[in-house]
Amino acid sequence: MNNIYNDKAFYDAYAQMPRSKDGLKAAGEWHQLQPLFPPLQGKSVLDLGCGYGWHSRYAADQGALSVLGIDLSERMINEAMRRTSAKNISYRVCSLEEYEYPECAFDFVFSNLALHYIADLDFIFKKVFQTLKSGGIFLFNIEHPVFTAGINEDWIYGEDGMPAAWPIDNYFYPGERQTIFLGQCVAKQHHTLTQILMGIIHAGFALEHIEEAQPSKEMMNVAGMKDEMRRPMMLLVRARKV
Amino acid sequence: MNNIYNDKAFYDAYAQMPRSKDGLKAAGEWHQLQPLFPPLQGKSVLDLGCGYGWHSRYAADQGALSVLGIDLSERMINEAMRRTSAKNISYRVCSLEEYEYPECAFDFVFSNLALHYIADLDFIFKKVFQTLKSGGIFLFNIEHPVFTAGINEDWIYGEDGMPAAWPIDNYFYPGERQTIFLGQCVAKQHHTLTQILMGIIHAGFALEHIEEAQPSKEMMNVAGMKDEMRRPMMLLVRARKV
Repeated sequence: MNNIYNDKAFYDAYAQMPRSKDGLKAAGEWHQLQPLFPPLQGKSVLDLGCGYGWHSRYAADQGALSVLGIDLSERMINEAMRRTSAKNISYRVCSLEEYEYPECAFDFVFSNLALHYIADLDFIFKKVFQTLKSGGIFLFNIEHPVFTAGINEDWIYGEDGMPAAWPIDNYFYPGERQTIFLGQCVAKQHHTLTQILMGIIHAGFALEHIEEAQPSKEMMNVAGMKDEMRRPMMLLVRARKV
Repeated sequence: MNNIYNDKAFYDAYAQMPRSKDGLKAAGEWHQLQPLFPPLQGKSVLDLGCGYGWHSRYAADQGALSVLGIDLSERMINEAMRRTSAKNISYRVCSLEEYEYPECAFDFVFSNLALHYIADLDFIFKKVFQTLKSGGIFLFNIEHPVFTAGINEDWIYGEDGMPAAWPIDNYFYPGERQTIFLGQCVAKQHHTLTQILMGIIHAGFALEHIEEAQPSKEMMNVAGMKDEMRRPMMLLVRARKV
């Protein structure tokens, strides 16, 4: 997993994104992600790639007994700590690959927009299964295979300078893709849909929900949101350890 | 559901496709589809959109007690009958929408490359659930959302005349798409991945397998097959009535 979120210039650019400044309500996927959270009253929660801690704090607000947020970026963890007063939330600088995933320790494991930086999804899925209690829920949001298979993760533009089509190539050659994100060259990992969903099934989970993020009606006036109807960018998946 | 497969010119062009002339082994997806069939010894089977009856005959060869193949195209059904000698296979001219789906009648319902002609997938999924016995399997192969959301279901070509990218647009506007297939204008139905998989879940099924078709190594020498690695064309789904 690369640590671009610890790069000062990238971190500063990230801080200017609407979702960084205004939190969950400014995230185009939140209106679909929120209803997929299970009841969290008294539950133990693990947040993989917690960033500023928006979702960790949301989980605590929902009554979670304890929340652990991990992130590879020390800058992110420092910012999460700065923003968090709740005593039942703890944060830790740690990669998703290196975390120890204690057996049957959590009721709910969550990950928002972190897994497309992971080369070996199967490894993480098995570890999440291990660390969940029986009946526990794994909810994640990952960049959609259509998005990660996009050429340079960008549109083809028409002569008018507007997006003309979303170009896909080399779909069945998963692995690292160099993209331009927030003005920097960022390596992401393309996974096919098969890899994502069969990875979940092979880890032992039951698939409960698969949903592609699309903007809410209320968001359609935000600049660029209409183009979000033209190709899927994020895939939301909820699975249960049965 | 349109009845293009009953059109004489289209039907004649279809007859020249490798999969029409050489059957299952000439179909690029068969090496992935075949392992998803459950054991069929003594089982009752329904084949939705049976075409020439290749899969109906395969099911009978696997020991199925009875097989019913339905297809909207009378030409297809006549050809299926002409090719079939097995007494435990019956064929019927009938659309997927109009079939009566008797309750708890089948152990296995199968559909190959027919569902992307269906506007209301939810309706068919509910009917299939109804007609399956408890524990029964629904296995289908449908054109992939990436394929049906392709602009005119065709590549963008470079100056050298070769495919340069697979262009996607209007992904979140499902419904009818006009495509050119076998030299004719053919209406297909674009469904998002969310619609396909949540339709299955909402109908009551448990998702067992989701797999995108990609060519086998042996097929990579066939003309055009290398381009099949560049974007997904078919989605294979197996679900169980639990």
